[in-house]
Amino acid sequence: MKIISQYIDKNKNNYINELKEFLKIPSISTDPAHKKDIKKCAHFVKTKLQDAGLNNVKVIKTEGHPLIYGEWLKAKGKPTVLIYGHYDVQPVDPIELWDTPPFEPTIKSNKIFARGATDDKGQVYMHIKSVEAYLETVGSLPVNVKFIIEGEEEVGSESLEKFISKNKSLLKCDAVLISDTALYDVGTPTLTYGLRGLCYMEVEVIGPQKDLHSGTFGGAVDNPINVLAEMISKLKDKNGKITIPNFYDDVMTLTKKERENFKKLKFSDKKFAKEVGVKQLHGEKGYTTLERLWARPTLGCNGIIGGFIGDGAKTVLPSKVKAKISMRLVPNQDPLKISKLFEKHIKTLTPNTVKVNIKHLHGANPAIIPLEDKPTIAASKAMEKAFGKKIVFMREGGSVPIVPVFAKQLNAPVVLMGLGLNTENLHSPNEHFNLTHFQLGIKCSAYFFDEFAK
Amino acid sequence: MKIISQYIDKNKNNYINELKEFLKIPSISTDPAHKKDIKKCAHFVKTKLQDAGLNNVKVIKTEGHPLIYGEWLKAKGKPTVLIYGHYDVQPVDPIELWDTPPFEPTIKSNKIFARGATDDKGQVYMHIKSVEAYLETVGSLPVNVKFIIEGEEEVGSESLEKFISKNKSLLKCDAVLISDTALYDVGTPTLTYGLRGLCYMEVEVIGPQKDLHSGTFGGAVDNPINVLAEMISKLKDKNGKITIPNFYDDVMTLTKKERENFKKLKFSDKKFAKEVGVKQLHGEKGYTTLERLWARPTLGCNGIIGGFIGDGAKTVLPSKVKAKISMRLVPNQDPLKISKLFEKHIKTLTPNTVKVNIKHLHGANPAIIPLEDKPTIAASKAMEKAFGKKIVFMREGGSVPIVPVFAKQLNAPVVLMGLGLNTENLHSPNEHFNLTHFQLGIKCSAYFFDEFAK
Repeated sequence: MKIISQYIDKNKNNYINELKEFLKIPSISTDPAHKKDIKKCAHFVKTKLQDAGLNNVKVIKTEGHPLIYGEWLKAKGKPTVLIYGHYDVQPVDPIELWDTPPFEPTIKSNKIFARGATDDKGQVYMHIKSVEAYLETVGSLPVNVKFIIEGEEEVGSESLEKFISKNKSLLKCDAVLISDTALYDVGTPTLTYGLRGLCYMEVEVIGPQKDLHSGTFGGAVDNPINVLAEMISKLKDKNGKITIPNFYDDVMTLTKKERENFKKLKFSDKKFAKEVGVKQLHGEKGYTTLERLWARPTLGCNGIIGGFIGDGAKTVLPSKVKAKISMRLVPNQDPLKISKLFEKHIKTLTPNTVKVNIKHLHGANPAIIPLEDKPTIAASKAMEKAFGKKIVFMREGGSVPIVPVFAKQLNAPVVLMGLGLNTENLHSPNEHFNLTHFQLGIKCSAYFFDEFAK
Repeated sequence: MKIISQYIDKNKNNYINELKEFLKIPSISTDPAHKKDIKKCAHFVKTKLQDAGLNNVKVIKTEGHPLIYGEWLKAKGKPTVLIYGHYDVQPVDPIELWDTPPFEPTIKSNKIFARGATDDKGQVYMHIKSVEAYLETVGSLPVNVKFIIEGEEEVGSESLEKFISKNKSLLKCDAVLISDTALYDVGTPTLTYGLRGLCYMEVEVIGPQKDLHSGTFGGAVDNPINVLAEMISKLKDKNGKITIPNFYDDVMTLTKKERENFKKLKFSDKKFAKEVGVKQLHGEKGYTTLERLWARPTLGCNGIIGGFIGDGAKTVLPSKVKAKISMRLVPNQDPLKISKLFEKHIKTLTPNTVKVNIKHLHGANPAIIPLEDKPTIAASKAMEKAFGKKIVFMREGGSVPIVPVFAKQLNAPVVLMGLGLNTENLHSPNEHFNLTHFQLGIKCSAYFFDEFAK
C-alpha cells in the first residue's frame, strides 16, 4: 500500500486538473438545454474509466440520460465491489449568488468551487483514480471492481432503477461502494450507516364550491383553512409524537450502543441553533438532536397555499386550501404503508363540513447498514488508515433512494463512504469540495480494496 | 301620495331608460384608466339632481374621486333627511363570465343586467326619482332633503370620510337614508338594522433564517407551518367559540325578541347549505345560522401561503409562512381593541422556536340601529305601504364601514332601506337589479318622506 499511497501523493495536481475538466461540463440533468453536455459528460467518464485500466467500458443508452459501466474482474476468487456514483449535477440558480462561475472550477483555501464539486463528481472521481493508482503501481486489483455511474441522480434515478432490476447478474457483487454522503466534520473519517426514508403527501381541503364573502357567510360555513390547520395540529401531540395510529409500529429502536456513539460526537445544540437561525430547537421529547435527525421519524409541512394571498385585505371565505405534508421515515418503516395510514387518519380527522383529497406524491425507503457487515468493517479500517484517526459512525436525516434499491435488488451490503461535508453547499450556490478530503478519499478507496480482499 | 304613486307608475319606462344611461358609464373607481368615466358619471349625477329640482347642486373635488352634493331645504320646521349612495362600481373581471356586456344594460325577465345595477346605481337613483316625483306633482317636499353621493365606495370611502368630518354643518340632518343593502327575499319589504364590523389581521411565523432541507434538519428544527397551524387551531374551541381572552366582553347579547324575529323568517339551513355547496353547515354552538351570520362574531382565515407550493414534491423545511386572519365583529366590539387582544393572544401562543410578526390590516366598526328610532319606524311604515306587505327586520353579516361613520360624526340615526338582493351578483359577473324592486324603491322613498314628516 505504501507504493500506491506515494503514487497518489505524487499525482495530486494531475487529479485536481482532471477533476477541473470534469467540473467544467455543465451536466445539469433536469434541464433539456443541457442534453448535449450530459452526453459529453458521459463520454468523459467513459474515457476516464478506460484510461484507469477498466475493461468492457460502455455508455449505456436509457430512456433518460446514459449510464456508464466498466469492470475489472481478474481477481479470481476475490469479492466484487460495485462502485456507484453520478455525473449529473443540480441547476445553478440563483446564479447571482455564486462568487465564481459555477462551471469555471476555482481553487480557494484548498477548496475547489464548482457545481458538482462535492455532489458527486469529486467523490465519484476518487474511485476512478484509486483503481488507476492500483493498476499503475501494482498492476492488478486485490478485488474485482465494477462501476455503474448514472446521469439522473438529481432527477430521481428512474433509468438506473430499471437497469438494476433488469441487469442483476451484470451488477452482481459482494458490496456496493458509494461516496455521495458527508463526513461528520472536517478531517474525521466517517461512515454513514443509516438513511431516513420519505413519505410525501398532499392534502387538499375543499369547503364551499366557490370563494364566498366572509361577511355574508362567515360564521355559518366552515372555513377550509381553519379546518386544515386543525387537522395539521392534530398530527402531532405536545411531545412531538406523531399521532397517526400504528405509525411507529415498524420503527427500529435506537440501541444503547448507538445512543452512546451519538453522544460521543459531542454535538452542540447551541451552535446548530445559531447556524440555523432559531432561538430554540424543537423535536420529539426524550431524544437528542442527533437522534431526532438521524434515527427518529418526523412529520412536517413543506408548503401550504389557499385563499387570498396578495397584499392587503380581501374578505374571502376560501373554497379550498392545499398543503404538502411529508414524513421522514426510519428503518423499517415502509413509505407505502405509511401513506395508507396517513390517508386513513386524515380521513378520520376530516369533519363533515368539508371534502378532502389526499395524494401520495413521493416515497423513498429508509436504509440501515449493519455495522458488522464485512464491507463496513473493511471500509472503517480503510478510512482509519487513510486519515490516521478513529472512525466515526453516523446516520443521515435525508434519503438516498437508490441505496435501498441496490441493497434489495442486488442483495448486497452497501457502504456509504462519503467524503463531502454538509456545509459544502450542495444544491446551493458556491458548492465546493475540500481538496484534502478529495486526496484522502482516493486513498480510502484504495485501502478499501486492500482491506476488503483480506 | 296617490298622485305621486300614479306619477311614478306612469314614468316607469322613463326611469328605466335613464337608469340605462347611468349604467352605461363604466365608473370603475379602482382602475385609473377609468378616471374620465368617473368624472363623466359624477356630472351625470349632478345633472340628474338638478333635473329633479334640487338646489345648490355641486360636484366637489377631493383627493380621490369627486362627491356630488344637492339639497332642497324649503320644508321649514320639518326634519332633514341626508340621502347617501355611490356612483362608482366594481371592476368587471372575469369579463368572460358575463352573458351580456357589463356596460350595455340589458333587460331579461324583468331584471336589468349591468355592472352597478344593484350596487349602487339602481338603488341611489330611486331616491333622485322620488324627489323628482314629489316636486313634479306636489311642488314641494314634506321634509328637507340633502344628497351626498360618492365615487369611492368600492375603494374605501376615504375622501367621503374626510369630507364628513370637515362638513358636519353642511351635512347636518335628522336621519341618514341609505339604499345599498338587500331585501330578505323577493317582494319582502325589509329593513336592515345591524351590520357586523371587521378586524383583519396578518400573522407571519418565521422559523429558520432560510429554507432548509427537510431531511437534514426535519425533526430538530420547528416547522413554521406546523406552528402556525397549531396557533390557528387554538383560536377557536370545539364549540366554535373564539378563545382570545376578553374577546366577547363588549358583544351585545341577542334579545329574545330578535331571536324570535329571526326564527319567523323560516330560514332553511338545508337550502343554504345546498346553495353554498357543502354537506353540513358549521358555526358557534347554541346559535342558529341567521344568528351566527348576523349577530355573532366569528374568526376565519382568508388566506395562507408558505413553503413549496408548486406541483410535485420538494423536501423543504420552510423558513416562513403567512396567514390572513379576520374577525367579523358585532355591536359593540371595537376593531382596534380586538386587534390588540388578538395580537396579545397570538404572542402567548407563539413558541420560543419561532418569531412572529402581526399586522392589523383593516378594520370596520359594527353598527346597530335601534328599532325604536323615529326614522326606522317611518321607513318601516313607508315600505309596508309601498309593498303592501308586513315589514321584516334583518341584520347583515357584512360591513358597511361608512354607516357607523355617519352615525358617529353626524350624530344621526341611519336607515338602511336596501332594495337589492344578495343573489343579484354584486361584485360578480352578471350583476343585475330587479326592476319591480326598482319601481317599488322609488315609492318607498317617497312614502318615507311622507311618513318621516308626520
